[in-house]
Amino acid sequence: MSQIRIIEVQQSVFADNDKTADALRAQCREKGIFLLNLMSSPGSGKTTTLKRTIAALKDEYRIGVMEADIDSDVDALAIAGTGVRAIQLHTMGMCHMDAAMTRKGFDELVDGSIDLAILENIGNLVCPAEFDTGAAKNAMILSVPEGHDKPLKYPLMFQVCDVVLINKIDVMHVFDFDLEECKKNILMRNPNAVIIPICAKTGEGMDAWYDWLRTAIRDWRA
Amino acid sequence: MSQIRIIEVQQSVFADNDKTADALRAQCREKGIFLLNLMSSPGSGKTTTLKRTIAALKDEYRIGVMEADIDSDVDALAIAGTGVRAIQLHTMGMCHMDAAMTRKGFDELVDGSIDLAILENIGNLVCPAEFDTGAAKNAMILSVPEGHDKPLKYPLMFQVCDVVLINKIDVMHVFDFDLEECKKNILMRNPNAVIIPICAKTGEGMDAWYDWLRTAIRDWRA
Repeated sequence: MSQIRIIEVQQSVFADNDKTADALRAQCREKGIFLLNLMSSPGSGKTTTLKRTIAALKDEYRIGVMEADIDSDVDALAIAGTGVRAIQLHTMGMCHMDAAMTRKGFDELVDGSIDLAILENIGNLVCPAEFDTGAAKNAMILSVPEGHDKPLKYPLMFQVCDVVLINKIDVMHVFDFDLEECKKNILMRNPNAVIIPICAKTGEGMDAWYDWLRTAIRDWRA
Repeated sequence: MSQIRIIEVQQSVFADNDKTADALRAQCREKGIFLLNLMSSPGSGKTTTLKRTIAALKDEYRIGVMEADIDSDVDALAIAGTGVRAIQLHTMGMCHMDAAMTRKGFDELVDGSIDLAILENIGNLVCPAEFDTGAAKNAMILSVPEGHDKPLKYPLMFQVCDVVLINKIDVMHVFDFDLEECKKNILMRNPNAVIIPICAKTGEGMDAWYDWLRTAIRDWRA
């Protein structure tokens, strides 16, 4: 029996996703809640990045996390270990989160005491990019072992993200990863993307990410 | 202008995928062609694994490769560099390959002179697992940096694969990757999965993979 609240969410094929997303975004703005949609491939370091981010910011913001997975609750348990509110969303095989699914989790997560709500999306560089979840901002993580050519192959993900964290820079020496080439590839897809190299495990570069997040939250509430 | 033949393939929503897949498989068996469907997350090492596999086996088999991507032709160019026949399939945004899409590529690839046809599927641990492509066997690559917990989160991919290559074992010391735990997680999803740890970059463990492939091809033609 899991210690974590698990909610089953399934895509409604008839939903008007953009309308639902806009409604959720409007509600978040009215209540001063910043909803962040965090996307990446499987194993790029979403949960590790979140754990460190929570440790750094939990005295500044009341944080709640929705962990979306097809199965298991390992990530929600890891987040709950940080002391913030965490719920697990099970997508019943679905490869992405849409706005209605996000709304269902959001309504469970937010009880009036959350400033920063984070959706850790399904690990997938393709489908999640196609669905507006209602988030204020989209963030993605590209990890060094995946390679600097990924923006060439997965264009939409890089186009829809406001910020790209390049994670696992501590192992750049053991992979054929060209950081400048990677930045060039990202900016070719999205000239407005903010690019922040980090190592979520050691904390390197994370201050720039916290500052980006603080500014985005402040602007959202202004 | 690309030097590679690029074919646009798009999912037919009305197609009876299983029927199309069975027909392609029957045709392959009749002609003695072994079609391998290779899947993984983005950046797990599909192309590197293929390049080394081709170098090792190209004197034994006439090999042809279909590179499926949403955009770009970097992988097909890399494969063409090995001297075998390579074509690029563009999925026009689709997150997976189905049997009709595979058939379209297959008909372009196979001109009577191929023994081993390989489909490098879209980098995605979710959607490709849902569609029978018509392949004789499904293979997947899980790379060490992705983590040993992936079978817990992406059940179907591990269920549908005949063989799981655990790649990038050369960097196991810099990641918190537990090989025995990983094997346990894979076998929990699929007790029949053959698991082969490899390093496609250095060649470590690749002989076991070539042997698995030789046996699978021999059995297919028997």
